[in-house]
Amino acid sequence: MKIAIVGAGALGLYYGALLQRSGEDVHFLLRRDYEAITRNGLKVFSINGDFMLPQVKGYRSPGEIGTVDLVLVGLKTFANDRLEELIRPLVGEGTQILTLQNGLGNEEELASLFGAERIIGGVAFLCSNRGEPGEVHHLGAGRIILGEFLPRDRERIEQLSAMFVKAGVDCRTTDDLKRARWEKLVWNIPFNGLCALLQQPVNLILARDASRKLVRGIMLEVIAAANAQGLATPLAEEYADGMLEFTDAMGEYRPSMQIDREEGRSLEIAAIFRTPLAYGARQGIAMPRVEMLATLLEQATG
Amino acid sequence: MKIAIVGAGALGLYYGALLQRSGEDVHFLLRRDYEAITRNGLKVFSINGDFMLPQVKGYRSPGEIGTVDLVLVGLKTFANDRLEELIRPLVGEGTQILTLQNGLGNEEELASLFGAERIIGGVAFLCSNRGEPGEVHHLGAGRIILGEFLPRDRERIEQLSAMFVKAGVDCRTTDDLKRARWEKLVWNIPFNGLCALLQQPVNLILARDASRKLVRGIMLEVIAAANAQGLATPLAEEYADGMLEFTDAMGEYRPSMQIDREEGRSLEIAAIFRTPLAYGARQGIAMPRVEMLATLLEQATG
Repeated sequence: MKIAIVGAGALGLYYGALLQRSGEDVHFLLRRDYEAITRNGLKVFSINGDFMLPQVKGYRSPGEIGTVDLVLVGLKTFANDRLEELIRPLVGEGTQILTLQNGLGNEEELASLFGAERIIGGVAFLCSNRGEPGEVHHLGAGRIILGEFLPRDRERIEQLSAMFVKAGVDCRTTDDLKRARWEKLVWNIPFNGLCALLQQPVNLILARDASRKLVRGIMLEVIAAANAQGLATPLAEEYADGMLEFTDAMGEYRPSMQIDREEGRSLEIAAIFRTPLAYGARQGIAMPRVEMLATLLEQATG
Repeated sequence: MKIAIVGAGALGLYYGALLQRSGEDVHFLLRRDYEAITRNGLKVFSINGDFMLPQVKGYRSPGEIGTVDLVLVGLKTFANDRLEELIRPLVGEGTQILTLQNGLGNEEELASLFGAERIIGGVAFLCSNRGEPGEVHHLGAGRIILGEFLPRDRERIEQLSAMFVKAGVDCRTTDDLKRARWEKLVWNIPFNGLCALLQQPVNLILARDASRKLVRGIMLEVIAAANAQGLATPLAEEYADGMLEFTDAMGEYRPSMQIDREEGRSLEIAAIFRTPLAYGARQGIAMPRVEMLATLLEQATG
């Protein structure tokens, strides 16, 4: 399958590298890492075993890639105003577009630009960071849940899922993409938010009773908003406890938003906070802690 | 009147200087400013006119002062574990103890140490900062509201109030000290908390709609908790709007807790946050934003 990786940060580099290693024809749209990767290849440091791709197809512009079978979008959502220019040259008749981006609203944006029938959503639970140019670090997890943006038979996403599984990714499909997106927000909203605001990794946030209780309080607000969106199966409050335990095992992991802040980049506040807040408010769900966290992040970085 | 100033930060130095200028016999217990003040006096830079006190009675220990008629307590509340040692040597038979400290619980602590009948509470609305050693800056406001800790006739506090008025302070008395304390918390909790957390002065916090709305949301939580304490006259929600306008006029004022954080000192989280939260919870009032702010401050500084 001919695949273009758009948004080759930690997530795009990691999944792209696995797909290439497994035999797919992967084309990386690169910026920071262009020189390093086209010259020396891509090095993956992974808890599942390190590996090196000596030859990687890297490009500076999407026009050089041409149309592909699959666009894998890993772009930071604050750059979504570039989706049109970055993806349009890649789209041919049968092109599928899979977004693994954070938060809510990405499928909708892509659908309005390229047609809803092309769009597949994916929720990635991946702990990864970029390292030096040409390097990516896979620190933990990596599961992907795929779902169609428009309801249709699952054959297309089952095939994509099989491709990921063949590449070594724990991948499965769902009929309820919305639920999967909100599940990830149960983690992303408290941890990306608090770690970015306080500039502390997850283990410090979880080390004190009061802040651990705050994390749980934020999670319960997200769960309440999720359950107001008409999910097929509601999220139980116990999901919060599971996420807390899952995070306890991460050690001193720094979520992407914390790294974005430390490195002076924009934060994904719209996709991870403001759109979920708006979806909650539309159903009458107040999320005072989430709203306060979004406001503090904007105030701290704006 | 023989007066001892215990806790000669900006507040203690400012009111002590006014009282001395007006003819009272003021004795300052000093630490950081001892050398500068005993050698060169105390300089007050005030929006009401600068003045200099060339001769100031400064001491390193309360035993050198001996018993006094009035102890004026301006100590930071995180140093309340020193109240006993700092005040005991000053207390004689008729000594009155006036606390102008922030937050809740100070009268109670002093009462348990020195007897409730001595204790007078004062709520100061003062914008002031310390400058170089030997200097204090009065940036705005300065009103004091005095109230008895135990209900009794107001003669004693009327006399104290008259002393402050003679010294140039806008001072009045109240029968409802509790209400006055909570009124100040309506300002202190959002502004001390947010400015210290974000390390931004009040005008930046008020410049954005979202954070201005957050300030108001926090104020309404404090007002709800205040009104659950059995005040003679409840606080109206409009009090929040008045406080917002009052603060708009302050410009880029940095509240004391922000300065404490910038200068690496402890923060008055117990008196300004945790005790009010406990008083609210005791009456069944949830204060999610206040609790979150306290937790974030502890997490950021602990």
